[in-house]
Amino acid sequence: MSVNEPAHLDPIEEAVAEPESFNMGPDVVTAVHEMLEAGEEDRARALVETLHAADIADLLQHLSVEDRRVLVRAVDRAVLPDVMAELDETVRDDVIEVLGLAETAAAVADMATDDALNVIAELDTEDQKLVLEAIPDPDRALIEQALTYPEYSAGRLMQREMVAVPTFWTVGETIDHLRATAEETPDRLPEDFFDIFVVDPGYRLAGTIPLSRLLRSRRAVLIADIMETELKVIPTTADQEEVAFLFRQRDLTSAPVVDDGERLVGVITIDDVVDVIDEEHEDDIMHLGGVSGDDLYRATIDTARARFTWLLINLGTAVLASAVIGLFDREIDELVALAVLMPIVASMGGNAGTQTLTVAVRGLATKEIVPSNALRVIGKELLVAGINGALFAVITGLVAWLWFGSAGIAVVIGIAMVLNMFVAGLSGAVIPLVLQRFKIDPAVASGVFLTTVTDVVGFLAFLGLGSWLLL
Amino acid sequence: MSVNEPAHLDPIEEAVAEPESFNMGPDVVTAVHEMLEAGEEDRARALVETLHAADIADLLQHLSVEDRRVLVRAVDRAVLPDVMAELDETVRDDVIEVLGLAETAAAVADMATDDALNVIAELDTEDQKLVLEAIPDPDRALIEQALTYPEYSAGRLMQREMVAVPTFWTVGETIDHLRATAEETPDRLPEDFFDIFVVDPGYRLAGTIPLSRLLRSRRAVLIADIMETELKVIPTTADQEEVAFLFRQRDLTSAPVVDDGERLVGVITIDDVVDVIDEEHEDDIMHLGGVSGDDLYRATIDTARARFTWLLINLGTAVLASAVIGLFDREIDELVALAVLMPIVASMGGNAGTQTLTVAVRGLATKEIVPSNALRVIGKELLVAGINGALFAVITGLVAWLWFGSAGIAVVIGIAMVLNMFVAGLSGAVIPLVLQRFKIDPAVASGVFLTTVTDVVGFLAFLGLGSWLLL
Repeated sequence: MSVNEPAHLDPIEEAVAEPESFNMGPDVVTAVHEMLEAGEEDRARALVETLHAADIADLLQHLSVEDRRVLVRAVDRAVLPDVMAELDETVRDDVIEVLGLAETAAAVADMATDDALNVIAELDTEDQKLVLEAIPDPDRALIEQALTYPEYSAGRLMQREMVAVPTFWTVGETIDHLRATAEETPDRLPEDFFDIFVVDPGYRLAGTIPLSRLLRSRRAVLIADIMETELKVIPTTADQEEVAFLFRQRDLTSAPVVDDGERLVGVITIDDVVDVIDEEHEDDIMHLGGVSGDDLYRATIDTARARFTWLLINLGTAVLASAVIGLFDREIDELVALAVLMPIVASMGGNAGTQTLTVAVRGLATKEIVPSNALRVIGKELLVAGINGALFAVITGLVAWLWFGSAGIAVVIGIAMVLNMFVAGLSGAVIPLVLQRFKIDPAVASGVFLTTVTDVVGFLAFLGLGSWLLL
Repeated sequence: MSVNEPAHLDPIEEAVAEPESFNMGPDVVTAVHEMLEAGEEDRARALVETLHAADIADLLQHLSVEDRRVLVRAVDRAVLPDVMAELDETVRDDVIEVLGLAETAAAVADMATDDALNVIAELDTEDQKLVLEAIPDPDRALIEQALTYPEYSAGRLMQREMVAVPTFWTVGETIDHLRATAEETPDRLPEDFFDIFVVDPGYRLAGTIPLSRLLRSRRAVLIADIMETELKVIPTTADQEEVAFLFRQRDLTSAPVVDDGERLVGVITIDDVVDVIDEEHEDDIMHLGGVSGDDLYRATIDTARARFTWLLINLGTAVLASAVIGLFDREIDELVALAVLMPIVASMGGNAGTQTLTVAVRGLATKEIVPSNALRVIGKELLVAGINGALFAVITGLVAWLWFGSAGIAVVIGIAMVLNMFVAGLSGAVIPLVLQRFKIDPAVASGVFLTTVTDVVGFLAFLGLGSWLLL
């Protein structure tokens, strides 16, 4: 906090402590921007120093690229490790570029192993080596080993700092050990931990003890008598989505990770799992919308390029649908009402199909839809599609009748509607299941298949029936 | 575990312990279904008793309504409190119906206050009274008070069981207190806890201590000397989304909740926050797809009804778009190529707009888009829309030229394309921001506004330009 101008900072402090809201508030971003604009980097720096590392990370993400670079150069080096650990990947790349490799290495050396790993994993091989050299052993060896685990695996997610005690210790010995370690070699204790792991002489996991259980037991009690032994043990190779599922299912705060030989090698904590949960949701929602997860922080040209591909695929779909219309150009020439009404059938099919698709994609992601209930889900979707298809056949038929005064057109659009909505319900449920079966992410690819089906069937059914029954 | 038929249960046990996967596996659901089908409720019950409460809840959700009801009647009453706490709302309603109020009340009485509150809050007023009567004081009073907090507030989310100690205690006194309480009145300790709260004589919060910090300090150390005093304190009225934001931002495992008088009244733990995060994501993704959050577990007729409304609104949009086409029926009659190509422009606008919309809705939900960077986001989206609009104008123009051999049509579709994609980018960014401003959930309403704009502008631009330049 700047002591020179407390009066000026008051409103900012207010913004930081916005009632009932825990984000730092837009005023801080604006204030920092104005200070940097005016070249008052010292004041910006003083303000930033009053913030929590996570808020500084947020601030860097909200600033423009230029402001961000100036601020990174100005800010105190001591906060960098914590701030960098909280940054979004794309913004972190930018910060690393500004800092250079030497300063990045210094910051990384001060991080917990899991955070350091996150940063290093994104660098190219040359840079990885340089940064790793700056990290003292044994951390360097641990990180190098962790890099050998597959991406998105438990091995990448875990941290190596943890507390493990032998089975024959008592509660008292464990607490004494913690106190002694904290005084003599505090670096060997994780900053915060939630469970103590109990291991046999071969470092194989025998059990875990939540700290609250340790604290309520008498000193003479044997660790082995109070430890949790019904464990779900996470192998280093487990997929991070499986890890997140387990944490949710069992309401865990931390869980042990073991290697091939069932030896304890690390611990995964809930804060990292929350990041995984957020990432997964982000991917699902973004992929359904045809964009990539880090779209917001990408440079304009990268965003445009990434979205182009998706749009090009959709152009293919649209041209295909137009080709279907092209088959009926003579019929449209004869009865122009067909051209006027045809988008309605296709559009309603697309919307109904998207509803089903969303439920199916989400249900697969949360494992609420599994093989044993998939048929029931499809059955329900077909029923829903049938009910709403019939209702909208009647409604749309009436609209068409009133509009064009032709019962024939009403019948044609009604039949086409119920057909397309039924097909939409079927496709919306089946496409994600089939993609999942072939190990293709349903969130990424389902939408384009669905639109192709509902457009083609929509135009084909309406124009086909129209030319058959009306001309 | 059934001791009579261990051989038969082997494959099931295998399914439960599916390697690298922590969900119980579809075989369990199938096995239970077959047992219930064959009337072997005892065997089903024996199998279910080997499962974790969270897995039993999953199982109930995966079973058909009929199987679920039979199983609920058969299952051991002792597991019901834990199972019910994990159930999805719609399925829980069904289970409560099967159990009846008396059994529901008995189960609720055994839950932690936050879980009990969840169940009770969903009952109607009459049933609430009956269930509350079954719960002994002081829990009943606490739950009744919690019901006075607004839905989705911190007051509803917190549990009342916690550990609070006075500022003048030492580490040793605190640990002795925990041990004594565990032995004499274990019910007064939460089953699991992560922080100890330090309060003054008026029960106002002075600080918090993570258990790991308590454990590494000597007995003589004063609580006041090691407690965390830079606290973000959560008022009972705080929105649960704000709470989730704070937990993520600070990597918290638990946080204190205070009342108007700043007195400590409860604690929110990370497992409940993970549920909130999941719920929010679920709502966002489902609303973008035009369905409600609990769609999967609703009865067919309820699902159909809920989706009908959304489809009806979309029908309005589609009819509006058709009306725009209707304005040009004579032009289409003259040049049928217009009818064939017109869906391409509308569809590409819709897709490009959805990309922008998804990024904006998601950015608003995660607070990555705030007033201070909103203009920058809109600017970027317009640039991206301009770049891709220009590219697709050329591509689509070429396609149209090759198809219909007319340079005029190529020019018309090219101009219409760049126009509509630009409008799509603008609308996709601005619509969610405006809705948010008016306190309307952008995830729910943005899509329908966007489609209306991109359809109307798409058809109007293409057909208008076509009739102006080509006829």
